[in-house]
Amino acid sequence: MNSKAQPRVVIVGAGFGGLNAALTLAKAPVRVTLMDRKNHHTFQPLLYQVATAGLSPGEIAAPIRAIVGKRKNIEVLMAEVTGFDLEHRVVQSVELSVSYDYLIVAAGARHSYFGHPEWEPYAPGLKTIEDATEIRRRILLAFELAEKQAAAGRGQEPLNFIVVGGGPTGVELAGTLAEISRHALKHEFRSIDPSRAHILLLEGGPRILPAYPEDLSRSAQKQLEHLGVEVRTSSLVTKLEPGAVDINSQRINASVVLWAAGVAASPLGKQLGVQVDRAGRVPVQPDLSLPGHPDVFVIGDLAALNDEHGDMLPGVAPVAIQQGEFAAKLIREEVSAQARAQSYSRPAFHYWDKGSLATIGRNAGVAQFGKWHVSGYLAWLMWLFVHIFFLIGFENRVLVFIQWAWSYITYERGARLITGSTELPGWSGLRHEPPIEAEERAASEIHAVTRKIG
Amino acid sequence: MNSKAQPRVVIVGAGFGGLNAALTLAKAPVRVTLMDRKNHHTFQPLLYQVATAGLSPGEIAAPIRAIVGKRKNIEVLMAEVTGFDLEHRVVQSVELSVSYDYLIVAAGARHSYFGHPEWEPYAPGLKTIEDATEIRRRILLAFELAEKQAAAGRGQEPLNFIVVGGGPTGVELAGTLAEISRHALKHEFRSIDPSRAHILLLEGGPRILPAYPEDLSRSAQKQLEHLGVEVRTSSLVTKLEPGAVDINSQRINASVVLWAAGVAASPLGKQLGVQVDRAGRVPVQPDLSLPGHPDVFVIGDLAALNDEHGDMLPGVAPVAIQQGEFAAKLIREEVSAQARAQSYSRPAFHYWDKGSLATIGRNAGVAQFGKWHVSGYLAWLMWLFVHIFFLIGFENRVLVFIQWAWSYITYERGARLITGSTELPGWSGLRHEPPIEAEERAASEIHAVTRKIG
Repeated sequence: MNSKAQPRVVIVGAGFGGLNAALTLAKAPVRVTLMDRKNHHTFQPLLYQVATAGLSPGEIAAPIRAIVGKRKNIEVLMAEVTGFDLEHRVVQSVELSVSYDYLIVAAGARHSYFGHPEWEPYAPGLKTIEDATEIRRRILLAFELAEKQAAAGRGQEPLNFIVVGGGPTGVELAGTLAEISRHALKHEFRSIDPSRAHILLLEGGPRILPAYPEDLSRSAQKQLEHLGVEVRTSSLVTKLEPGAVDINSQRINASVVLWAAGVAASPLGKQLGVQVDRAGRVPVQPDLSLPGHPDVFVIGDLAALNDEHGDMLPGVAPVAIQQGEFAAKLIREEVSAQARAQSYSRPAFHYWDKGSLATIGRNAGVAQFGKWHVSGYLAWLMWLFVHIFFLIGFENRVLVFIQWAWSYITYERGARLITGSTELPGWSGLRHEPPIEAEERAASEIHAVTRKIG
Repeated sequence: MNSKAQPRVVIVGAGFGGLNAALTLAKAPVRVTLMDRKNHHTFQPLLYQVATAGLSPGEIAAPIRAIVGKRKNIEVLMAEVTGFDLEHRVVQSVELSVSYDYLIVAAGARHSYFGHPEWEPYAPGLKTIEDATEIRRRILLAFELAEKQAAAGRGQEPLNFIVVGGGPTGVELAGTLAEISRHALKHEFRSIDPSRAHILLLEGGPRILPAYPEDLSRSAQKQLEHLGVEVRTSSLVTKLEPGAVDINSQRINASVVLWAAGVAASPLGKQLGVQVDRAGRVPVQPDLSLPGHPDVFVIGDLAALNDEHGDMLPGVAPVAIQQGEFAAKLIREEVSAQARAQSYSRPAFHYWDKGSLATIGRNAGVAQFGKWHVSGYLAWLMWLFVHIFFLIGFENRVLVFIQWAWSYITYERGARLITGSTELPGWSGLRHEPPIEAEERAASEIHAVTRKIG
């Protein structure tokens, strides 16, 4: 078959779903165009480690081109897709349009603020490398500003870290924040005690980790409390503004608010001409194709599909990976059958649930494998090895493992960089007061201040 | 001695000079306040590796607090110093003022645009982590935009990378850019050939690396040319605007321009009440103190001091480190002498020049140790080991060494992340044209585009 005549598969999004679809099509008799608005694939399960300064962005993100490498039938374009012309089979982006024979839409999800997009500047969510470095900046800056305020003789500003949302991301963030404030920063401040930071995890429903069995939710809450996190369930955020959160209409001061409460599918779903569900997901056929468009597949967090029990498949990496591989194999076999003028009957997608793992913090986690429930150190260890093992790139795996081992032994967090702005929204400390003079520093220091040398 | 009565040493800037001064004062009978507007110390000699995606920011920057750690007499404040009240011995920052008995000003230097600050947005310099990630973004984005344009059937935009300034930083950037375009990106693009990128190093004077002996300048130029860099000496930038540079009044299109041409000392130097030199440096006494203010020391890139031959000490890390240690020891001994009511005669600072090393690129470098001149692989290897050895933090050293070994063997650059904006100033490609339709893609593709499947 002439390569020019090979069908073109366009994949939108290089997350777990899109990337695995592309790699599965390597060496297939198709040309693949993989489009993403970023130049890198992000290993999202470890994003919370970047947000909490344990890992560097480069350790959990790899250039899409480097992953694809020498697979000559895959072309990578860094482009932001804006829409589709399904009739003429064209994907539109800001700068160019690309024609397809098959289309796989794997545009993922972003966080959602339940109809309050104005909350985003005060409570960043965690989906991209930029999100993670912004959260890291805010967490570290809160400690720096508190130290500066205390050093100026104005006492310790109460440090309140509020994590909204008791799913896996919220639990990871809260648990790691506790570890940082109790251990990593222990010896490094002179005027404040970082371990006095208050870490509050809010969950709107009756229990955290609602996708897990009840006994594991209870265990996770106990493990979090043991790490020093206050967990409040049935707690809804009713208002959010700089420096404060209203929980069930009760106001709480907040130094930093992190958002892990809701996700909404990519707005690209609405461009596909079908009715999306409340979370913006696109209902798909059992073969993952778009109703009425057998040449278009929707996979991963953007797709709405029930499993055989009638439950919606969760928005997790294993679902996206399996769907990406499924759609790619289907296309490969359909193209081969057509080349031989044979008929091809499409199979239905079935999700193979290998189990669920959530980490909570140092030595703490929960895991479910069918009826087998695991808590604590063993679950944490399993989580650790699974995630390092699946991290893309051999070099990254080695480096991340060394980083982790080092952090574990020393409690050190190696990637504690504040970059960008030095402003913190709603910081109620020094910013709006005039600078104080030396004489106003704590009375005990006045002697040193006025003393003359030599 | 009561710790409350101990004299306070305030150090402004946690670069090589300030940080070494602080560490030298650990356990001395003084209280130290180390102020920096960043929370991290940056290992500047490896900044070009971040700018060229070889290392991650976290690998060459360490939190100042973590370096200081348990040294209890050192307090770290992340604060931007705005001025000094030398009469009342107060350091002023935006949010608080700090009194001192001794002051060490080690505020360093920024790049300078020879009276053209308006050039900065089009030609970033390399002094901070933020500078490095911005340069990285531009370099990687230029290849991405060129690929997208070529994939749209519009041909390969000539990729011109122009590095202004033939000192060590310019040479490192140009040499590494050549390595990236010739090797690291080799197999990753489908529509452009990255090795056709043109890398141009401009030097205003008659030879590159002017601080080195002439034979090493010649060798460095040959090594750069061997790597694929065009070197132009006696070439002055007369105008700089988005997408173009005028060199000796001749216009050249530029995809990315990097600035490594000049440095100017921190504007804080002017706040010290003495006449600064043309580069903004503060002339200091032989003991590094400010004329008329024996309690104030100025060190590192901010200080202007001649060596015994009448030559100005260069703005390099070893000078700053030795000056930081010198000022700290002087203070420690003066304070001890005063505590015993003894007189103390201040020594003069002498720079011990251990030699100079510059890297050029893969297996390429130059080195000078007195009369011994080294070029090529051996100089590169010496540079590598010296720089990894002096990198702060054991963990960082191990990780950086692994990264480097991996990159060397595989030619891979692990930290190729584009974060932030996807705009490139002056990019003349797709941005200002309407998106092209599928039918306009290269004629050879029309067949594939219009072909129907199934």
